[in-house]
Amino acid sequence: MEVIEVLHMNGGNGDKSYANNSLVPQKVILMTRPITEAAISDLYCSLIPKSICIADLGCSSGPNTFLAVSGLIKTVDKKRKILGHKSPEYQIYLNDLPSNDFNTIFKSVPRFQEKLKMQMESGFGPCFFAGVPGSFYQRLFPTKTVHFVHSSYSLQWLSQVPELKEINKGNIYMASSSPSSVIRAYVKQFEKDFSTFLSCRAEELVTGGRMVLTILGRKSEDPCSKDGCYIWELLALALNGLVSEGLIEEKKLDSFNIPHYNPSPAEVRNLVEMEGSFMVDHLEATEIHWNAYDSDSLEFDKFKDGGYYVAKCMRAVAEPLLVSHFGEGIIEEVFPRYRKILSDRMSKEKTQFISVIVSLAKRA
Amino acid sequence: MEVIEVLHMNGGNGDKSYANNSLVPQKVILMTRPITEAAISDLYCSLIPKSICIADLGCSSGPNTFLAVSGLIKTVDKKRKILGHKSPEYQIYLNDLPSNDFNTIFKSVPRFQEKLKMQMESGFGPCFFAGVPGSFYQRLFPTKTVHFVHSSYSLQWLSQVPELKEINKGNIYMASSSPSSVIRAYVKQFEKDFSTFLSCRAEELVTGGRMVLTILGRKSEDPCSKDGCYIWELLALALNGLVSEGLIEEKKLDSFNIPHYNPSPAEVRNLVEMEGSFMVDHLEATEIHWNAYDSDSLEFDKFKDGGYYVAKCMRAVAEPLLVSHFGEGIIEEVFPRYRKILSDRMSKEKTQFISVIVSLAKRA
Repeated sequence: MEVIEVLHMNGGNGDKSYANNSLVPQKVILMTRPITEAAISDLYCSLIPKSICIADLGCSSGPNTFLAVSGLIKTVDKKRKILGHKSPEYQIYLNDLPSNDFNTIFKSVPRFQEKLKMQMESGFGPCFFAGVPGSFYQRLFPTKTVHFVHSSYSLQWLSQVPELKEINKGNIYMASSSPSSVIRAYVKQFEKDFSTFLSCRAEELVTGGRMVLTILGRKSEDPCSKDGCYIWELLALALNGLVSEGLIEEKKLDSFNIPHYNPSPAEVRNLVEMEGSFMVDHLEATEIHWNAYDSDSLEFDKFKDGGYYVAKCMRAVAEPLLVSHFGEGIIEEVFPRYRKILSDRMSKEKTQFISVIVSLAKRA
Repeated sequence: MEVIEVLHMNGGNGDKSYANNSLVPQKVILMTRPITEAAISDLYCSLIPKSICIADLGCSSGPNTFLAVSGLIKTVDKKRKILGHKSPEYQIYLNDLPSNDFNTIFKSVPRFQEKLKMQMESGFGPCFFAGVPGSFYQRLFPTKTVHFVHSSYSLQWLSQVPELKEINKGNIYMASSSPSSVIRAYVKQFEKDFSTFLSCRAEELVTGGRMVLTILGRKSEDPCSKDGCYIWELLALALNGLVSEGLIEEKKLDSFNIPHYNPSPAEVRNLVEMEGSFMVDHLEATEIHWNAYDSDSLEFDKFKDGGYYVAKCMRAVAEPLLVSHFGEGIIEEVFPRYRKILSDRMSKEKTQFISVIVSLAKRA
């Protein structure tokens, strides 16, 4: 499986689309706003660029695509008004893998541009949008042309499934029952990928450039601790159920592993320091419930069956990977089982995603 | 009808797609190569940029999308080798309206990048691609960031259907039977759109920037001469046939006009001079048979029914416009009739498209 060809969130605007099942990533973008705002304010005030180039890496397709970017633009506009400067021109790059649904994004660009103009009063912009197809584990932009990089809930995706020397029996990701060689392979792949990411961005960012990365991670230093792996462990449980029922061959499941890694804050800090191009300005880990509706007490009843929403959300994320390996047929089999398992666990345990947020400044 | 929302070539890779029905535009790109190569060579040799930014405006979706751009890249690479320079970085912007099928383009970017690398030996690139959704009758790029603009078979599309004061009875475009107010409105709309295009590009191009535009045009100075309008006149004939058969309401046809204009070389020159930002380096008009297969004598028998291919090609271009106005239902009715009419005329007359090619240099 070539991750670059297969990995993408479900496209379009339908019931199964990522666009309609991405409340957790949305809440995470809103939660990290104070950090992104501080970083882009710093950048703007120190460089006062006439043209500011902002890249969102792993932008996916849906309302979140514009959510992060619009927050960044508004922050710069507020700042430039306070300082009495003319508006910079904005060049916004929206990046994701080539299989991402860019058509849906592009169709909403004109409306988004109109809305921005209306909200920002006269003197704002212009604001130019471009879509950039490609893996962020490679160079995406010319040397020293980008001012600010944002990436949310994307860097936990690896460039490939690590090469495993042993079978990861019964699992589809690292788990406490995984052979230690499997865990080492996952750790190594993340180290390699994240370092490559940092080096590529270091070449692309202007001197003084900034970067805020939010990664689906873990708090524990144990790579197969529950806070990082549990959501996939339960999907593995559902898939193993299909093996027992004879709907999936055991061999087929043995050869399926997710190209994913949930780093801890310490791992992120270490890799940044080892790579050397960036200084850590801020680093933290926050929690969010698997069922993002959960915290809206008013709506709680309506969304009581958290398993339903979490399964839908995970389907929007994982369906293309599963289809590519197992075929279309298993989708309607696996997700109802997964939903049941999720509902059960969520009613009994505290289930949450950990976000690792790091704000970086490029060294001179 | 909002042209920006409706106008696009048929997407995908299927039998009805523009990708598979765009042999005329392909041949035109190849025919104009000497002009584009001379222009980009001049540009490269006079500026020797470290990073060269090339924009293809109205790139559509299909093999032609990469055809023009790959020719430009290869020319620069040949030149820099002769001069003994390091390869520049390439930033390639592919622009079209937001409803263009960018997903299909983006999926072939990795393969195209691989192919380029293989063809160009070591030391080439890197080469970065970005898709830019939007109308080229507006600004698309930040100030003074683009070195070279290419556009082929796109600028004959107007930003809107001209506002007509009289009904263009029985026609869907300018024709000899059109009221003179209709013809004036079309001329005015083109003047406005083309001047806007030039002003926008003048702001975006660097000093010394170049532009090569190929426009589906005419040779005659008469705006409704046959060499520009005949292909649409025959489509109007097919649509009028549907009116007589009661399949389209007459009123519905009365309110349908194509947002299209075929300028003459003299018109293009005048507008460039009036707008004032560019100097004309080269201007010519060339001919190509409606049936691009026609010239390949070996294959002549296979493609004898030119009407079939021309109708398919026009369908790939005009289907979204027709569907948006008349609904899906008429498509399978109108194109077989159109094909018959085309076959008949092509067997009796010399039928050809005129390309107006202009190479421009931005004034200092």
